[in-house]
Amino acid sequence: MMTPRLDALDAFLLDLNRASAEAILPLFRAEHGLQNKARAGAFDPVTLADRNAEAAIRKLIAARYPEHGVIGEEYGEDRPEAEWVWVIDPVDGTRAFVAGLPVWTTLIALRHAGRPVLGSIGQPCLGEIYIGQAGGARLVNRDGVHPLHVRRGVAMDQAILATTDPDGCFEADERLAWRQIRAAARLARTGCDAYAYAQVAAGHIDLVVEAGLKSWDIEAAIPVLQGAGGFVTDWRGKPVGRDGGQVAIAGDRAILDAALVALAPAAKAGSEERA
Amino acid sequence: MMTPRLDALDAFLLDLNRASAEAILPLFRAEHGLQNKARAGAFDPVTLADRNAEAAIRKLIAARYPEHGVIGEEYGEDRPEAEWVWVIDPVDGTRAFVAGLPVWTTLIALRHAGRPVLGSIGQPCLGEIYIGQAGGARLVNRDGVHPLHVRRGVAMDQAILATTDPDGCFEADERLAWRQIRAAARLARTGCDAYAYAQVAAGHIDLVVEAGLKSWDIEAAIPVLQGAGGFVTDWRGKPVGRDGGQVAIAGDRAILDAALVALAPAAKAGSEERA
Repeated sequence: MMTPRLDALDAFLLDLNRASAEAILPLFRAEHGLQNKARAGAFDPVTLADRNAEAAIRKLIAARYPEHGVIGEEYGEDRPEAEWVWVIDPVDGTRAFVAGLPVWTTLIALRHAGRPVLGSIGQPCLGEIYIGQAGGARLVNRDGVHPLHVRRGVAMDQAILATTDPDGCFEADERLAWRQIRAAARLARTGCDAYAYAQVAAGHIDLVVEAGLKSWDIEAAIPVLQGAGGFVTDWRGKPVGRDGGQVAIAGDRAILDAALVALAPAAKAGSEERA
Repeated sequence: MMTPRLDALDAFLLDLNRASAEAILPLFRAEHGLQNKARAGAFDPVTLADRNAEAAIRKLIAARYPEHGVIGEEYGEDRPEAEWVWVIDPVDGTRAFVAGLPVWTTLIALRHAGRPVLGSIGQPCLGEIYIGQAGGARLVNRDGVHPLHVRRGVAMDQAILATTDPDGCFEADERLAWRQIRAAARLARTGCDAYAYAQVAAGHIDLVVEAGLKSWDIEAAIPVLQGAGGFVTDWRGKPVGRDGGQVAIAGDRAILDAALVALAPAAKAGSEERA
């Protein structure tokens, strides 16, 4: 089999984002059929937008690259050990989506030999696709194409931080670590899920910390941040495992290192090591 | 003096939003000259976008309605006891603005005889202006004009909540009250400042609670929510005082009443009563 070239895959990834946006936008702020897919007592929202977008993405992949694997939040795994595997979260931030807040994103990563090599973070209301690979990252929006570069050389007391939901997503020791970092930084924002990762790549946010992620919540961000000159690690500073978990996303190495010191007491070993 | 008709003022308010957007957008995600206007140890960000937008708005008001008063976050009070007074927050959510997150808004209210009668919540990145008066509210966006109606008849365990920053904006008793409401609701989102008020008017969020607001943080929302059929009160269920303070914004009366029960232990008397 010929190895598909990464630039053809990059163009195809833009097509996937466009198809996904067409599936989602008519359902944003409309009848989206919200359901709870969690067991009794919990709440894990899913809508027709998640399902229709993932179905649209899978259909295009099956037609163009039938030998590729696909892992998606809504429809599970097909050929997860293939050489090339797409990892999809059609609507990251479903809670923001159902609240009418345009900070949800469509996350699509492409793994080669088990490692994410290409990824995109798309926000259709804003007409934005943040897309990257190790060689570089860019923002494609209504005005054109703009290279993405993280911000460097910011001291922690000037840093801008983000996390999605300290009360809802962190365990007690994780929350304590977050508060310690927050107290040292200039300001913190919450509620933005993966849209905050895109703003690290774009140089506006310096550090995002999250916990309890799934692979499809984070893999797309890894090539975008690599291409923009940033870092994505677990809370021990190691590569993020295929199971997601605790993640730190930073633009500057010194900010990441300072954060990892504060995160260390709450850092857990990845499942690949535990297994 | 002839009393200006409210429909002429409504059209003028759209012009103010357009002028403000032109002042702000070139500085979003660009060199915006962030400064700290708080005293030592605190952080209260202001940028050139705040200042330029408020200056642009004041210039248009002075040219068209020189007898009107103006109260703005950045440039203080002119004729605050005039019959008609504009109350302006050029960039509500400056923290979101500097973090590259497009959930900041431009808030403009018009008081008549001391009471807000017209207001707008504008988000230029999205091309959205939520605008209203007691007779009705609408969203003006790139697709056209859409009437705004709150959501009614949602039980608290299905409700969607928002607040900006429980860790940063609430005192201890306020945080406790917020957590109690959050535990009873379906889901909560944070980080959206006044953009969340607009989503109550649009029927996507059911309840927002905030504390420590200034008049320019909330007055614009009052006519928008009134026009959309919703409610804006303080935490005791009384009209929000001119000094802002603790605020609850709800689409449904029963949701508001349930929230007020939980908020009561942390509710403070307004400054107008204390005086």
